[in-house]
Amino acid sequence: MASHRAHFRFSQRAARTTEQPIGYLMAAALEQPGLISLAAGLVDYPTLPSDEARALFDELLAPGPDAKAAMQYGTTEGFAALRHAILDHLAALDGLTPEQLNASADDLVITTGSQQLLCLLTDVLVDPGDIVITEWPSYFVYTGVLRTAGATVRCVDMDDQGMRPDDLERVLADIAHRGELTKVKIVYVCDYHQNPTGLTLSRERRPAILDIVRRYSAEHRILLIEDAAYRELTFAGPQLPSIRTFDTTNEYVALLQTFSKPFAPGLKTGYGLLPRDLVEPVALLKGNHDFGSANLSQHLLLRAMRQGIYQRHVRLLCGHYGTKAAAMTDALRDTLGDYHPGQTRWTMPAGGLYVWLTLPEGTDTGRSGALFSRAIAEGVLYVPGEYCYNADPTRRAPTNQMRLSFGTARLDEIREGIARLARAVKSF
Amino acid sequence: MASHRAHFRFSQRAARTTEQPIGYLMAAALEQPGLISLAAGLVDYPTLPSDEARALFDELLAPGPDAKAAMQYGTTEGFAALRHAILDHLAALDGLTPEQLNASADDLVITTGSQQLLCLLTDVLVDPGDIVITEWPSYFVYTGVLRTAGATVRCVDMDDQGMRPDDLERVLADIAHRGELTKVKIVYVCDYHQNPTGLTLSRERRPAILDIVRRYSAEHRILLIEDAAYRELTFAGPQLPSIRTFDTTNEYVALLQTFSKPFAPGLKTGYGLLPRDLVEPVALLKGNHDFGSANLSQHLLLRAMRQGIYQRHVRLLCGHYGTKAAAMTDALRDTLGDYHPGQTRWTMPAGGLYVWLTLPEGTDTGRSGALFSRAIAEGVLYVPGEYCYNADPTRRAPTNQMRLSFGTARLDEIREGIARLARAVKSF
Repeated sequence: MASHRAHFRFSQRAARTTEQPIGYLMAAALEQPGLISLAAGLVDYPTLPSDEARALFDELLAPGPDAKAAMQYGTTEGFAALRHAILDHLAALDGLTPEQLNASADDLVITTGSQQLLCLLTDVLVDPGDIVITEWPSYFVYTGVLRTAGATVRCVDMDDQGMRPDDLERVLADIAHRGELTKVKIVYVCDYHQNPTGLTLSRERRPAILDIVRRYSAEHRILLIEDAAYRELTFAGPQLPSIRTFDTTNEYVALLQTFSKPFAPGLKTGYGLLPRDLVEPVALLKGNHDFGSANLSQHLLLRAMRQGIYQRHVRLLCGHYGTKAAAMTDALRDTLGDYHPGQTRWTMPAGGLYVWLTLPEGTDTGRSGALFSRAIAEGVLYVPGEYCYNADPTRRAPTNQMRLSFGTARLDEIREGIARLARAVKSF
Repeated sequence: MASHRAHFRFSQRAARTTEQPIGYLMAAALEQPGLISLAAGLVDYPTLPSDEARALFDELLAPGPDAKAAMQYGTTEGFAALRHAILDHLAALDGLTPEQLNASADDLVITTGSQQLLCLLTDVLVDPGDIVITEWPSYFVYTGVLRTAGATVRCVDMDDQGMRPDDLERVLADIAHRGELTKVKIVYVCDYHQNPTGLTLSRERRPAILDIVRRYSAEHRILLIEDAAYRELTFAGPQLPSIRTFDTTNEYVALLQTFSKPFAPGLKTGYGLLPRDLVEPVALLKGNHDFGSANLSQHLLLRAMRQGIYQRHVRLLCGHYGTKAAAMTDALRDTLGDYHPGQTRWTMPAGGLYVWLTLPEGTDTGRSGALFSRAIAEGVLYVPGEYCYNADPTRRAPTNQMRLSFGTARLDEIREGIARLARAVKSF
């Protein structure tokens, strides 16, 4: 019976799980020395708080019970003291007390980055064929989760104020009209300095989006995932309240944040404040995944928060990324400001790591297009905009856009990278 | 349309995901001061290498590029330098070179503990209704993964030499006879100092088990998961070769190990050496989960391995756990040696953290039974054996067994805990 040629027979989930196109981009960046990557969503190297972490580990791991506790297994839902500190922090970001936010530390789950929580929330709610609603465009790693889950994705237009409530209403009404409202499980919004566009949901739209989700939650509750990964990296404009603050009964919104962007990705620690009745299902599934994310990271982060080191670092980063963002948008103005005015435009982020560039209609920014190759030849890498659009059966993705990140590139690299990009663009 | 009473509608996976009974036990342990827990699978506190980690972090995070790299995002499959070090380590454990093992660093994936890899491997292979074969009894956290995946579980008898090849053959022949061989995706074996029994698969049976899996892999390949989490904690007897060494073409065996048991659970880092054609599907799914486990932990572990600190620590642990295991089996002999001889027996582990105690037929060790309550009243906690049996539709789980761990309890607590347990047992 033996046959060394027999193949593994993969699950349906595995069959739906496809390569993230960004993987190719990262590999390309490593292969060509001198290439300036404006593609990677990594954070800035020089500002990574390694000195701070070193001092904190020195304290944490000094002989005593704390040291041993940090090296032992933690709990599935995460270190309780850190969850309390996070709760206070989240409430403070909204200018509230935890009581005013109607939240407790028991509503928080700590995960391996906020990505794991996106995955867990989707897995506990979405069966194949269920519908998830996202922005158009949206965060492409979540796109991978949705594909694996077998979700049908419907998308909602954005403008300079973020997701458009009128279009969300239109999409939901259309779904209801088709008799498929029972399939809608999640509305996903990256509402601060969105990945990939850098756009932020305006103050006025925050309760409006929630209100629509609530109104369409007749037969069952639709979860509104508020992905606030870039929230704390707000370097300009007002600090907007979370959508969660308007969900005063704590029923509809899962507010997801992370320590990766505002502190250090190497600790791989994210978290979410969840409607109470989602905590147990999420924790049970996480029990299967890993029964708890790295405990040592969590103990370190508690010290960083308690000593104000975390908060100080966030302030430093905001100044830093503000300068880098300005360098990028200034460079775009200087090099592409006169290129098909009105047809060439870019976002002016008030935070986060991204600028979204739109080129004249007919430009093909795709990986197999001439511009992408030309940009590589010039020595600059970007993320083709098409990767950021989910496969909505009712829509066709634009092909004339790109995501530019000022995360890792130095100031001089940002200027030089944009100059190279502009040369590539203008060569057509 | 609004209704604040609407519930979330959970996925089928969530509906299959149930509470781990061990959660209750852990909570019970915390609630009763003075309770000696022989239930927890945690590792020994005093030996946790916090001093070593402190010194290593001091080096790693000293100003320089290594510090920044460790604080940045890593890669989905894990830090390449650590994968190379692990490869050398795995080969050395089998007394081979990586070439002799027919393995490369590209065949290794680093995960959030080996638990995450159990979850990923199951998810890429198992659809609801597919069959997974485990030992009888087996590791109960993996049971949770199998329930969520919707797997049908068939179990194979063990004896003092571990999983019985003749029973594996019988089970597979029975499945084939029913025409269900196409559903068999995984054979799961915890082959060193098994959780929960402490039993080890004998030298002779290692190639025999693999041979059976190979012979039944006619229509598609069956994956043999070799869970070697406790392998390095071998404190007595010979170092047995991995089953993987007999899979010379690297096609059938996924060899899973971890840094949690032999070094520190707080780093939450495990890994697996996989058949080449499983690496990509696993990495793609892990891309959805978290696109990489905590990078800082991985950088620390590389230094611990390169400087021999890891290896030295493993030797220290082996001596330590050997002493604790002897304390437990000695205490069992002293307190239960005369209790229904022949009907009361326990395993004599050569490694790991567990002793498996069998009491006379008719004893009920279950959580709702009188013995469990009596043991709690005496001040000792154990894991009821019934939790360690998968729901095999063709079998009925024994109710007269328990798992005893010498992981966290001190020597005096082990002796006192067993004395309390013996009093509870003898009170009936």
